[in-house]
Amino acid sequence: MTELPTDSGVNALLTACRNVSTDPDERARASIDRSGYVPGGIPDGIVYAESVDDVVETLRLASLYRVPIVPRGAGTGLAGGSAATAGNVVLDVSRLNRIISIDPVEQQAVVQPGVLNAEVNAATAEYGLFYAPDPASTAICSIGGNVATNAGGMWCAKYGVTRESVLSLQVVLADGQILKTGRNTIKGVSGYDLNALIIGSEGTLGVVVEATLRLRPKPLHTATVAAYFANPAAAAQAASAIIAARIQPAILEFIDGGTLAAVDAMMGTDHSSRGNAFLLAQTDGYGALLEQQVLIEAITPFALSIEQTDDDGRAAELVAARRNAIPALQLLGRVSIGDIGVPRKRLADAVQGLAEITARTGVKIFVIAHAADGNLHPMVVVGHNESITEGPAKVALGEMFHLAQRLGGTLTGEHGIGLLKRDWLEEEVGSLSLELQKKIKAVFDPLGILNPGKGI
Amino acid sequence: MTELPTDSGVNALLTACRNVSTDPDERARASIDRSGYVPGGIPDGIVYAESVDDVVETLRLASLYRVPIVPRGAGTGLAGGSAATAGNVVLDVSRLNRIISIDPVEQQAVVQPGVLNAEVNAATAEYGLFYAPDPASTAICSIGGNVATNAGGMWCAKYGVTRESVLSLQVVLADGQILKTGRNTIKGVSGYDLNALIIGSEGTLGVVVEATLRLRPKPLHTATVAAYFANPAAAAQAASAIIAARIQPAILEFIDGGTLAAVDAMMGTDHSSRGNAFLLAQTDGYGALLEQQVLIEAITPFALSIEQTDDDGRAAELVAARRNAIPALQLLGRVSIGDIGVPRKRLADAVQGLAEITARTGVKIFVIAHAADGNLHPMVVVGHNESITEGPAKVALGEMFHLAQRLGGTLTGEHGIGLLKRDWLEEEVGSLSLELQKKIKAVFDPLGILNPGKGI
Ligand SMILES: Cc1cc2nc3c(=O)[nH]c(=O)nc-3n(C[C@H](O)[C@H](O)[C@H](O)COP(=O)(O)OP(=O)(O)OC[C@H]3O[C@@H](n4cnc5c(N)ncnc54)[C@H](O)[C@@H]3O)c2cc1C
Ligand SMILES: Cc1cc2nc3c(=O)[nH]c(=O)nc-3n(C[C@H](O)[C@H](O)[C@H](O)COP(=O)(O)OP(=O)(O)OC[C@H]3O[C@@H](n4cnc5c(N)ncnc54)[C@H](O)[C@@H]3O)c2cc1C
Repeated sequence: MTELPTDSGVNALLTACRNVSTDPDERARASIDRSGYVPGGIPDGIVYAESVDDVVETLRLASLYRVPIVPRGAGTGLAGGSAATAGNVVLDVSRLNRIISIDPVEQQAVVQPGVLNAEVNAATAEYGLFYAPDPASTAICSIGGNVATNAGGMWCAKYGVTRESVLSLQVVLADGQILKTGRNTIKGVSGYDLNALIIGSEGTLGVVVEATLRLRPKPLHTATVAAYFANPAAAAQAASAIIAARIQPAILEFIDGGTLAAVDAMMGTDHSSRGNAFLLAQTDGYGALLEQQVLIEAITPFALSIEQTDDDGRAAELVAARRNAIPALQLLGRVSIGDIGVPRKRLADAVQGLAEITARTGVKIFVIAHAADGNLHPMVVVGHNESITEGPAKVALGEMFHLAQRLGGTLTGEHGIGLLKRDWLEEEVGSLSLELQKKIKAVFDPLGILNPGKGI
Repeated sequence: MTELPTDSGVNALLTACRNVSTDPDERARASIDRSGYVPGGIPDGIVYAESVDDVVETLRLASLYRVPIVPRGAGTGLAGGSAATAGNVVLDVSRLNRIISIDPVEQQAVVQPGVLNAEVNAATAEYGLFYAPDPASTAICSIGGNVATNAGGMWCAKYGVTRESVLSLQVVLADGQILKTGRNTIKGVSGYDLNALIIGSEGTLGVVVEATLRLRPKPLHTATVAAYFANPAAAAQAASAIIAARIQPAILEFIDGGTLAAVDAMMGTDHSSRGNAFLLAQTDGYGALLEQQVLIEAITPFALSIEQTDDDGRAAELVAARRNAIPALQLLGRVSIGDIGVPRKRLADAVQGLAEITARTGVKIFVIAHAADGNLHPMVVVGHNESITEGPAKVALGEMFHLAQRLGGTLTGEHGIGLLKRDWLEEEVGSLSLELQKKIKAVFDPLGILNPGKGI
């Protein structure tokens, strides 16, 4: 695991760049993200960019020497997108971490890619504003990574995903040129939507070095409901009833019984004693309390018990159950975090289908979900020494993707394709679409040096 | 104006296709949209597609014979995007006008491109749902045209533009292959966002033959405010105060005094007696009335008078003032409808800048605006016999775009580039972006047969 760079191009690049590390430990850390995927080797080196010029220079040299570059933000990705192996150089942009400006009147923030998601919200909160896309990893993931994966979160039920909150970008292309995409106005249709093309492109089209974010007014009122159900099917029915009642929850999260028990074990809470499935719903805005009442009426027929609160502290405790779900499961074993999307009325079918996959494969699958968007995170948990990318876990993963597709869904709602889901992408989007995407990739990155083998 | 097709490729295509017209009157009608742009000639023929197969066959033959095709929906565009001239064949998809399905539970509709915007809302209203992007032309424009221009409207202040409401598309490519973009789930990040790439591409990348639309629950409550001001600057300040008060209006429309007078003249209303500028604001949802009160507080310091209502009939009358603004101005002369976007806090500066352009050029400019988005429609009005694409009107147009750019804005918020704004596009997006866009165009349409000379 400590092989030195042998390739002369890589050597030349690492020699010419500033802030390079070839320390084996750092390289080993930079070889993985949080997906559990373990590449065969480790990257040859890491460039820690400290300025946009550093990024430009690295990519210019990478083009010159044909060095495969893996852009890396905070490394919290769940698809292997920032995983790197021998022959790769990691371009780490986490030190580009300045909030450049906040415009409270226009409700925009300009930030560098290494700024953490939670830092944006901390800085904008004092103006009564927030940045809506809130991955559960908010405290540890970067805006650049969010852009590259079109990250979602709980508030996306009402406020949309990253794409709906990123107005414009500065992107360093493979040859070192700086592209501006989007615009700083809310609307605009001058030319093709390159901004949306970069968002979700997983570091394969360019390296994001600046983002202009759309902020939103923090809602003055928020009302929270926690409901417990006898089984996941009842909770899924309740979620559908909320949509059917034409309520727009700001948050609507589903947690199954197994996950609740894991959360209780970690947090010392007692959710699982109250039911075998859980829905967390928040309404916000001027009508939060009224809307909460309608929501409670809609779910009452399905629930064992319902707790309502408009106290911020108690609400935060309830939200914590959801935020801690993943860490809690990780205490049980190695976790592969799925991310399928289905039409939201198929939530119950999806939960049922996942139970059948467990029955068939023997692989344990826990389920949490952004219920209002039909975005499920099936959590495959295996023993700490078992593989999550081979054997039964991989079989279960494949079955999971086919389940999503059978239900009219998608294999990734917000985590991206990365390395882990490439085998199933063509099946979903079709060969014609994939072919066009490869040609677009070639337009942006003719030498194929940007995150090769990832995404499309 | 009655020249017959001479080019043999065009002849071969028109002979081989079904539902072709070479009637000179029809061709003359199909040569223009509503932008006021008059091409030098008329297209050689029109293919009226009645099925997806007709579209496929037309494009297949167009590729074979290298015939430039102009996709056409309802022809209400304001950028010359569907204008067609000698040597072109118009592919009119207005007869593909079926609503294929409405799924009230999933809140989606699948429609053909020729369905009118208002027809979608009429059909979905009975389920308590609506389709949010509502151009003022809702009664006469088609969904295909909306997709191709990323159309906006009044409700976009709260609910976003076409891109935020179109989940997936079927697109016939230049060579006749059928591409599916997007997906029928709300979230998804499997591969590049080709769906967003097609949206706003003005018929230059493919012909949209089917769209899956996201519907939204009709808000149970709507509250309307009409406010009158001594001058546009005061109204613009009030609009900014609404944003600063962290209110999320569903509608926030600005109308200047000249336009108000034109509306009064056409409709027999008396708006202009009440002030020299007008804001129409709606709040909606469970908190509509509460939010309305906060809104009224925010604008009171700036207004001459404020009318509030939660009566649907009266609200519709007030909204009608905005919907009829364009037709009212068209009674005064030939109108070139501008569409600039600026950061929303620059609304007053933009209005002021437009007044200065009038002072400098002598060209009359009326102003209406989607104030919450900073999207202004400066209406250049000239005599019925004067040109809007040459002479002083063109000078004024150019100055308007530079004004937008100086204020950090864009030359088109929702109408597209078409033919009319091409001269200024590169200045806005930069040469690198334009070069990439041209390469993407070549990926989709290597022979350049799709709406050549339009958009990028
Ligand atoms: C406990 C936990 C909970 C999570 N919850 C959520 C959730 O709720 N929602 C959600 O969407 N995700 C979630 N994630 C996944 C992850 O946090 C997101 O995908 C996040 O957006 C990744 O950001 P990052 O900075 O860590 O990116 P990295 O892991 O460093 O990189 C991710 C991808 O983006 C690329 N990339 C990174 N920075 C740039 C850049 N500046 N320019 C170009 N490409 C770049 C990389 O090459 C890679 O392909 C969770 C992860 C964990 C561990
Ligand atoms: C009075 C009036 C008010 C208006 N108000 C607004 C407004 O508030 N907001 C707004 O956004 N617009 C507005 N418009 C402009 C216009 O209605 C929109 O641009 C609309 O989206 C055009 O739709 P259409 O079907 O008429 O398209 P067309 O004019 O037929 O075509 C417009 C463009 O789309 C392409 N196109 C059409 N159909 C397809 C298809 N199926 N596949 C691929 N490309 C296609 C054409 O080639 C052309 O480039 C207004 C227009 C008028 C006359």
